[in-house]
Amino acid sequence: MQTLADRIKAFCAERDWERFHAPKNLAMALTVEAAELLEIFQWMSEDESRNLTPEKLERAREEIGDVMILLTNLASHLGIDPAEAAQAKMDLNAVKYPADKVRGKSLKYDEYDAR
Amino acid sequence: MQTLADRIKAFCAERDWERFHAPKNLAMALTVEAAELLEIFQWMSEDESRNLTPEKLERAREEIGDVMILLTNLASHLGIDPAEAAQAKMDLNAVKYPADKVRGKSLKYDEYDAR
Amino acid sequence: MQTLADRIKAFCAERDWERFHAPKNLAMALTVEAAELLEIFQWMSEDESRNLTPEKLERAREEIGDVMILLTNLASHLGIDPAEAAQAKMDLNAVKYPADKVRGKSLKYDEYDAR
Amino acid sequence: MQTLADRIKAFCAERDWERFHAPKNLAMALTVEAAELLEIFQWMSEDESRNLTPEKLERAREEIGDVMILLTNLASHLGIDPAEAAQAKMDLNAVKYPADKVRGKSLKYDEYDAR
Repeated sequence: MQTLADRIKAFCAERDWERFHAPKNLAMALTVEAAELLEIFQWMSEDESRNLTPEKLERAREEIGDVMILLTNLASHLGIDPAEAAQAKMDLNAVKYPADKVRGKSLKYDEYDAR
Repeated sequence: MQTLADRIKAFCAERDWERFHAPKNLAMALTVEAAELLEIFQWMSEDESRNLTPEKLERAREEIGDVMILLTNLASHLGIDPAEAAQAKMDLNAVKYPADKVRGKSLKYDEYDAR
Repeated sequence: MQTLADRIKAFCAERDWERFHAPKNLAMALTVEAAELLEIFQWMSEDESRNLTPEKLERAREEIGDVMILLTNLASHLGIDPAEAAQAKMDLNAVKYPADKVRGKSLKYDEYDAR
Repeated sequence: MQTLADRIKAFCAERDWERFHAPKNLAMALTVEAAELLEIFQWMSEDESRNLTPEKLERAREEIGDVMILLTNLASHLGIDPAEAAQAKMDLNAVKYPADKVRGKSLKYDEYDAR
């Protein structure tokens, strides 16, 4: 299968949409899509979010697809591979959050902000 | 290399963080990370966003990594593969936005909202 | 006291920041501030969010201040008064969500999206 | 006129919605509304965002109303007045960003993040 980044690039080129796709605009669209995904969960309890109805799960799948498309498109414009960037960040996280220091400590955890 | 989803799962299990990771909470954290990525671009012109300084590019790489980690973690909890969800959404987009109807038309494009 | 909108306007004029403040950019900054407010709550339970520590409450106060500043600044550039816009939206909501139809019904409520 | 905070409180009490309105959930809904406002501007140029069509302006007015409602509701649950919080933050900003140091300097400005 065509890689996702290549498929998105061809899709946008064919529609002459590249001129709208400055990284600034794509970052806006990415946040908008993330918020649409968030909207699904906003009035649910945590337990309900662990047990989605088939309808909500399908909606989540579509919004996850949209977030992934925008993230891939933005990263592609910046010459970045999202999966590689994530693996590199996991390397940093392993150093920043040593398991034996943060395990099960909610206070420590509370200070964790994934940055 | 270990897949990203497996690595994140092991990382969180080792730290006993799973109990914090209801999909609702992960969707919140995903949006927070997307907004941190957005923050890089907020006062830039579109042209500046196309020509990031090395410092800004590095910061973008880290934030893209964070967004990818959260998206993968959330999707994993819901039994969804983000890349597959994106390909499925691209199939829908191809039907929804026929190239010969939307090409170069900013009005049509303006109505495009990636949903 | 000077109105908030006037104070923000004078503050930005004095710093020659107006040229950065296109509504597009202010809308980005508003979302970034909203996400910083959201970040406070992301790993808390709902109960914990109802009983903030003094430190978290103070942080929430600052972020609420930032969101209000950005919202007022953006609205001001568009010639809109946020309080009037909210009252007008409440008029619409009163029609859209009749109390005797939506009261205590989580299903109905679930469909409520504040739009 | 009834104050906005009082009106929202009565509106939600009448519908028995209070139990859904933990600050955590309201902060999610606030971010979702901010992103809906952002969506209006995402593919516009900065100049276009300074000259909205009547239709876009009306849509912006509604979304600004929604953001203001959620911000007021969240702040009210935390015992905070948004306008007072904004004035207090402006006091801090006046100290943090002295006009004669940051005026017209895009580099300084670039470091400004409204926090």
